[in-house]
Amino acid sequence: MKEEKTNKLKIINDPIYGFVTIPNALIFDIIEHRYFQRLRRVTQMGMSNLIYPGANHTRFHHAIGCMYLMQKAVSTLKTKGVKISEEEANALYIAILLHDIGHGAFSHALEHSIVEGISHEEISLKFMKKLNKEFNGKLDLAINIFEQKYHRKFFYQLISSQLDVDRLDYLKRDSFYTGVKEGNISSDRLIAMMNVKNDELVIEEKGIYSVENFIIARRLMYWQVYLHKTCLVAEAMLVKVLKRAKELIKKGFDLPASSALKYFLYNEILEDNFTDETLEYFSKLDDYDVFSSIKEWINNDDVILSKLSEMIIYRNLLKVEIRDEQFTDNFINKIKTELKNELNVNEEDLHYFVFSNKVKNQAYDCNKPIKILTKKRELKDIVKASDQLNLQTLSKPVVKYYICYPKKYILT
Amino acid sequence: MKEEKTNKLKIINDPIYGFVTIPNALIFDIIEHRYFQRLRRVTQMGMSNLIYPGANHTRFHHAIGCMYLMQKAVSTLKTKGVKISEEEANALYIAILLHDIGHGAFSHALEHSIVEGISHEEISLKFMKKLNKEFNGKLDLAINIFEQKYHRKFFYQLISSQLDVDRLDYLKRDSFYTGVKEGNISSDRLIAMMNVKNDELVIEEKGIYSVENFIIARRLMYWQVYLHKTCLVAEAMLVKVLKRAKELIKKGFDLPASSALKYFLYNEILEDNFTDETLEYFSKLDDYDVFSSIKEWINNDDVILSKLSEMIIYRNLLKVEIRDEQFTDNFINKIKTELKNELNVNEEDLHYFVFSNKVKNQAYDCNKPIKILTKKRELKDIVKASDQLNLQTLSKPVVKYYICYPKKYILT
Amino acid sequence: MKEEKTNKLKIINDPIYGFVTIPNALIFDIIEHRYFQRLRRVTQMGMSNLIYPGANHTRFHHAIGCMYLMQKAVSTLKTKGVKISEEEANALYIAILLHDIGHGAFSHALEHSIVEGISHEEISLKFMKKLNKEFNGKLDLAINIFEQKYHRKFFYQLISSQLDVDRLDYLKRDSFYTGVKEGNISSDRLIAMMNVKNDELVIEEKGIYSVENFIIARRLMYWQVYLHKTCLVAEAMLVKVLKRAKELIKKGFDLPASSALKYFLYNEILEDNFTDETLEYFSKLDDYDVFSSIKEWINNDDVILSKLSEMIIYRNLLKVEIRDEQFTDNFINKIKTELKNELNVNEEDLHYFVFSNKVKNQAYDCNKPIKILTKKRELKDIVKASDQLNLQTLSKPVVKYYICYPKKYILT
Amino acid sequence: MKEEKTNKLKIINDPIYGFVTIPNALIFDIIEHRYFQRLRRVTQMGMSNLIYPGANHTRFHHAIGCMYLMQKAVSTLKTKGVKISEEEANALYIAILLHDIGHGAFSHALEHSIVEGISHEEISLKFMKKLNKEFNGKLDLAINIFEQKYHRKFFYQLISSQLDVDRLDYLKRDSFYTGVKEGNISSDRLIAMMNVKNDELVIEEKGIYSVENFIIARRLMYWQVYLHKTCLVAEAMLVKVLKRAKELIKKGFDLPASSALKYFLYNEILEDNFTDETLEYFSKLDDYDVFSSIKEWINNDDVILSKLSEMIIYRNLLKVEIRDEQFTDNFINKIKTELKNELNVNEEDLHYFVFSNKVKNQAYDCNKPIKILTKKRELKDIVKASDQLNLQTLSKPVVKYYICYPKKYILT
Repeated sequence: MKEEKTNKLKIINDPIYGFVTIPNALIFDIIEHRYFQRLRRVTQMGMSNLIYPGANHTRFHHAIGCMYLMQKAVSTLKTKGVKISEEEANALYIAILLHDIGHGAFSHALEHSIVEGISHEEISLKFMKKLNKEFNGKLDLAINIFEQKYHRKFFYQLISSQLDVDRLDYLKRDSFYTGVKEGNISSDRLIAMMNVKNDELVIEEKGIYSVENFIIARRLMYWQVYLHKTCLVAEAMLVKVLKRAKELIKKGFDLPASSALKYFLYNEILEDNFTDETLEYFSKLDDYDVFSSIKEWINNDDVILSKLSEMIIYRNLLKVEIRDEQFTDNFINKIKTELKNELNVNEEDLHYFVFSNKVKNQAYDCNKPIKILTKKRELKDIVKASDQLNLQTLSKPVVKYYICYPKKYILT
Repeated sequence: MKEEKTNKLKIINDPIYGFVTIPNALIFDIIEHRYFQRLRRVTQMGMSNLIYPGANHTRFHHAIGCMYLMQKAVSTLKTKGVKISEEEANALYIAILLHDIGHGAFSHALEHSIVEGISHEEISLKFMKKLNKEFNGKLDLAINIFEQKYHRKFFYQLISSQLDVDRLDYLKRDSFYTGVKEGNISSDRLIAMMNVKNDELVIEEKGIYSVENFIIARRLMYWQVYLHKTCLVAEAMLVKVLKRAKELIKKGFDLPASSALKYFLYNEILEDNFTDETLEYFSKLDDYDVFSSIKEWINNDDVILSKLSEMIIYRNLLKVEIRDEQFTDNFINKIKTELKNELNVNEEDLHYFVFSNKVKNQAYDCNKPIKILTKKRELKDIVKASDQLNLQTLSKPVVKYYICYPKKYILT
Repeated sequence: MKEEKTNKLKIINDPIYGFVTIPNALIFDIIEHRYFQRLRRVTQMGMSNLIYPGANHTRFHHAIGCMYLMQKAVSTLKTKGVKISEEEANALYIAILLHDIGHGAFSHALEHSIVEGISHEEISLKFMKKLNKEFNGKLDLAINIFEQKYHRKFFYQLISSQLDVDRLDYLKRDSFYTGVKEGNISSDRLIAMMNVKNDELVIEEKGIYSVENFIIARRLMYWQVYLHKTCLVAEAMLVKVLKRAKELIKKGFDLPASSALKYFLYNEILEDNFTDETLEYFSKLDDYDVFSSIKEWINNDDVILSKLSEMIIYRNLLKVEIRDEQFTDNFINKIKTELKNELNVNEEDLHYFVFSNKVKNQAYDCNKPIKILTKKRELKDIVKASDQLNLQTLSKPVVKYYICYPKKYILT
Repeated sequence: MKEEKTNKLKIINDPIYGFVTIPNALIFDIIEHRYFQRLRRVTQMGMSNLIYPGANHTRFHHAIGCMYLMQKAVSTLKTKGVKISEEEANALYIAILLHDIGHGAFSHALEHSIVEGISHEEISLKFMKKLNKEFNGKLDLAINIFEQKYHRKFFYQLISSQLDVDRLDYLKRDSFYTGVKEGNISSDRLIAMMNVKNDELVIEEKGIYSVENFIIARRLMYWQVYLHKTCLVAEAMLVKVLKRAKELIKKGFDLPASSALKYFLYNEILEDNFTDETLEYFSKLDDYDVFSSIKEWINNDDVILSKLSEMIIYRNLLKVEIRDEQFTDNFINKIKTELKNELNVNEEDLHYFVFSNKVKNQAYDCNKPIKILTKKRELKDIVKASDQLNLQTLSKPVVKYYICYPKKYILT
């Protein structure tokens, strides 16, 4: 009996793309690493499955899908004469595979609740550096690209830009799993239209309408799915419940929670004190820690913690209204007064049940333009290339305001 | 042995919608009628299959699909409390089933070549009236609706408006068969968002993004598919070859052609002289007449007729260029001069091989607005309801110019 | 301010079927009930997402899908003249919606680990009876059907038989989410072919090939997906880790676990002692309890508990081999001996890491035949009606044997 | 002005596979050749669109699809270490692209009506040889493979065997366009499971269930689609009408027909007298010739020709019944007697309206076994490898008998 040589060339089944091939043993090992495996337990769309019950896909699957599209993009560009070495291609696959590894439990929903003042991209970078040590520097180039230090600008644009592989996958994937067909962009066609000019990632002229379509589809997905009002309230309540937990702990109460979550509830983690130990705890934290802890809190003596927890788990959410103008304090205060007597909580705690906030989305960002390669091989900003779709207008951020309050009240 | 009672409740398989049920015996009989069966031999997308080889679907299938969506729309509206009697529903099904029965061979491609000064809708009406006689007046209400005479305005809007059942089917169907995924609108969601207010067909507020998406998807389908430059040239050549045939006949030459086509080649049919006899001939004319005749003309002595025919059948089309500005006569004349010597044809016939033209599309028509029903149950034009997509801009017709000329020349 | 009247007519988006309508307020309330909401946190396919990363769909979505198909089935049967009252239809919807509500965490994977000697169907019934009290007896008929007491036999067959609505949904759904296209049965066609004869659910003759296809597709899904060897080992390890936890607790150790899971770890629940209190705890137990507890156990002092937990969470599973014949004890013992020294555990605990077992599947069960309604309206067992597919052979259960052991050993 | 260099790297849109890339200029030129372009006018499924209105796809699209799958197969085999040179790969693409170019109008429906005693494969070979001359011998290797002369046996098996690329495309494609979902085989997985052992094309062991599924799906497609009774009668009537036309011509009557069709109506073409001239005429014959001629014949004086033509075009087909046993002459004769008086035709002509025939399908052919490559890298016939699906039984040809007769009679 001796050690078996593992066959590291594997195929992963994707309902969207079919068979995805893992290109080499290094990438296979990265995927097998417990850091990456954690992504299996982090939902891609936060609490959206409360509205779209099919949306249970994970960051794991999204990352694999991104790698697949990156393979397609590299292959397309090479066909068009863009030189990409095997080492470079591999770095691209690793960079895209790990671009979101710093996402915490429930993805964006808790991005600024678990830790503060540090983005998921920064945490991704920490993970990449840690992995680089374990893999003896084999991630050097990937990190270089991810940090925008690589001299070939389009490499980073493939990973992060207005038309990056990340967006091409998540729109298609989220559309697929939610069943919101309008988001089903043609990532195939967009990749087929990719090219490189002056080291910039560009789209060939005949792809203009596909780009327009992509922008409008993304806009729809934001307002109809990602910023769906029920999703907003659910995620806001998730933030609130963690906030309450931290508050109670600060006051000296002890709360049941998983050991990974406890670390982040008992310690205020900012960019400065995000140590190696923090990263280790972070690597153990996923949706299961959060949800199982909230489930325990249903039985807590603190009525606010208990009530919020119950509402989340039993999907008995606050009422939410969304509109284009801000809400006045009048209404909020009126409800708070009534509520105060009923719930027997302090005035300063009423914000847990009555609060308003805003959401913002920008369909197109003029500052990082999508460039079009004309038939004459000149570069043109899509804003100018598109004959009619007014992207200037679409680049103005849309802001909407929402208010949440207990169901039994009605807004007049 | 005696006559069998036919089971007239049938199911038709649609790759897009699944099983489509024919609602009653009258509709079954209309579908079985040779007028309607002709639509099996009329391609929905003209010559588009030269570019998108999957696009061989027919007017027959489109009409059946429209009927299916109309069933969905009626059912949705009834659920929302809109009263629609069985007789009315049936009239809607018949009207939408027959709305395109007046399409001639190759649908829009030859709309003004076979007959002139009469639209396919007018011919549809003639067919409907003829069928009404055969079916003892059972199509009265359907005709009434189709002629915009019925007092309930939204009935006609379901059949013809900017968001009618016709468009909901053809965009989805054409997207499906061409493989151009961006056109895959969510007809399901749009129908689910339909409502009626003040006898007008409206879309509920939460459907705004879907409407935007629908408009942009339609715009893409126009420029990427329906007005694809290769499609433009192919259909222009189809028009040219029929024009040449008529010209030769006028000059006294005899041409082989099917008897149905001969009728339209030898007689100039306008609105005025479109008789019952014409309708009968029209009912026998389909893609097979046109294409088989063109195939025969390949061997004709007239070099223009023969050359054009060969180019169409062998898919050896003229070169085509498309752009935003008009082409000057200079270039055209230069080619014509060279060509004249080579082909040995008269100057006035050179337009068969060198010509330019324009195409126009309007993404949104402000004059027949899509109305939005707000949460407060007020009506709003989508132009105002959409927070950001500049539909005003999108309502300006886009015009593009194209030029066609033999492949061996190059435009400088 | 007063209580708002809730609009209880809702639509749920299903990527597979499109829009699913909740038929009435009672069913809306059942779905909103926390018992039913728990199904959102119970994965449909246990640990299969370790192999098919798209397979994260839940019991919640499956139940909703079943209700949708039941609506289709009822509507089809009514079209064919089968009388089904509104009350009966409603009972069918409720019965199918709740048929799986008794599934515990990780569905089948832990069916006999959390509680013993009681099936998920029996627990479903307990839930139904509890809900019936809360809803003042409105579930009477649904329960009657579910208990096979209703006089119209085909009602129960729609819920549970070889061609029930349950299978029609789960095969299609599991195929969709795993991406294993071969399982994509035509539930539409099978439902369209349903009929009732002598109070029995039957399939019309022209549906024979679809039934054959359904049986073969189900067989493939079993061997390729449900009983995939990696899935087998993952679920076996899940069972093992819970077994170890119970063992340690029996020995007096204290283990961290959610309160709901603790109840089932500290008490041996059998059919006899499954009380109302048990049901309440059961209603709070889901995948999150199990997985978050296992995550905590990674740090436990007990090497067996800790090792198994880590292997599950980090997807560092035992090696598994599967074949048609039983494995001999020789090999097992050899590995155990080696392992014993290394892990420093007792001999009787080695079965946690080295074990073999068998799986069985029967493609077709002759005892509960699928009946075919011939054109002459006679009933025929599909075994006889199918001209060639040897269902007799397919009804013999297939047994396969698998063995699991640490990766570093190789089987010779 | 000078000749433009054409960019010959093109992409074709396929609704099934997405973008199909034409691998090189030679293949581009073959596709552009008028011989190949003819396939655009030959429907893949004969008259099946009368039953499945979506089934209007052509031989052209099928051939392109086959080429795409062949590219996938070559790439898979190369990944597994099978050596395939660029020249060999190219030959495979050409061979599969042209394997069906010998199909005449309406594909199989008229295979033995237009010419006799010569299969479409033999005509394909004639076309390939003709093209080879035009392309200066560049098709040598492709022809070599197609003629089974190439020493590497699996090359031919990829083109023609029980699990060839042809079947992988046509089942998937026909399923897609008819909407019969059960035929939607996983060509992706089957190709992924392909391998080569001893120069034979084999399927790896874990693909067994996919092969089973493929065989059963194909069986279903045969009985439910290809041999659908309405399709049988429609195609039989197509054969009959051509037979009648030939008969009338033999008797000295003159019939309108396209020049290409006339050639085959006036000359009896067998293998022996299939000359270069014949090939040229054959290359001009397509569905348009046949259908436009039949349309003309509606007005013919011969009541049989006219009646049959009308019935086909107006889809007013004969009644058809299908069953497992032969029909006796009794019934046929009874109808013929009645019919004779009514139609005023000779007794010997009554077979045009009353006739019976049989159809046969073999789900699996034991003589050309599908070989399975076991994990131990041994070859096994699938009949033995499949644990349970009784392929022995499935290899017995199923024969069904059908009878066609005018609708007004009923079979007692």
